[in-house]
Amino acid sequence: MVQIDERTGLEQLEETKCLLLLGRHTVGRLAVVQDGRPAVFPVSYRRDGGTIVFRSDEGAKLDAITGNGDVAFEIDDLDPRSRSGWSVAVTGRAAEITDPLELAAVERLHIEPWAPGAKARYIRIVPESIGGRRILR
Amino acid sequence: MVQIDERTGLEQLEETKCLLLLGRHTVGRLAVVQDGRPAVFPVSYRRDGGTIVFRSDEGAKLDAITGNGDVAFEIDDLDPRSRSGWSVAVTGRAAEITDPLELAAVERLHIEPWAPGAKARYIRIVPESIGGRRILR
Repeated sequence: MVQIDERTGLEQLEETKCLLLLGRHTVGRLAVVQDGRPAVFPVSYRRDGGTIVFRSDEGAKLDAITGNGDVAFEIDDLDPRSRSGWSVAVTGRAAEITDPLELAAVERLHIEPWAPGAKARYIRIVPESIGGRRILR
Repeated sequence: MVQIDERTGLEQLEETKCLLLLGRHTVGRLAVVQDGRPAVFPVSYRRDGGTIVFRSDEGAKLDAITGNGDVAFEIDDLDPRSRSGWSVAVTGRAAEITDPLELAAVERLHIEPWAPGAKARYIRIVPESIGGRRILR
């Protein structure tokens, strides 16, 4: 069943569909609050079950991600020419993975960071909400 | 001159190059703090001089954008297959455009929102920082 948001006219994607799209993609944008202000940057990620895993170096970014743990994450595929596409937005809590068994498991996800460098820390986002929208033309 | 970040090995893009990229694209992701938590969503935008202009409906999203005005904005073009690409990140302050002359000017930018609906409000982001990174392979 297609659900249409009455206010926006957009198709709302069910959570199962959003998870499918999250599993098909490997690049998203992470938004965090850093010193009280929003920050957003692209990350390579993998969906791991119902969660999102990505890598980070230590530093201010990792501190902002794991500070109080509140993050937002977004993927999309939008074509400005046809003005069609979809987006999926996740809000949730991010925490560093420190358990050795869990670390060994996520290393097998083969997450390749964009930037050169170690990016030895693994972060997992456990979603609290997952929503998606598709533009119908 | 190409500037390489020693820590990440990424090419840092100069502000003029970032503004050029912002002028070539029309879809970005806006991050705001909403009820103390980060939120991120795609927006159709236009670069207007050194600023970013987009449209919004009134409501919780507009309130979050113009609340204290702190926003982050990101565009990118990243290819997971070749692991190459670039991203530009802007932080700045967003405010609704209310001056009739200024409104008339930005209406001529022909910003087409993705979603159906009025999106009668125009928002301008005045950047405080603009930075870009390119992945060298």
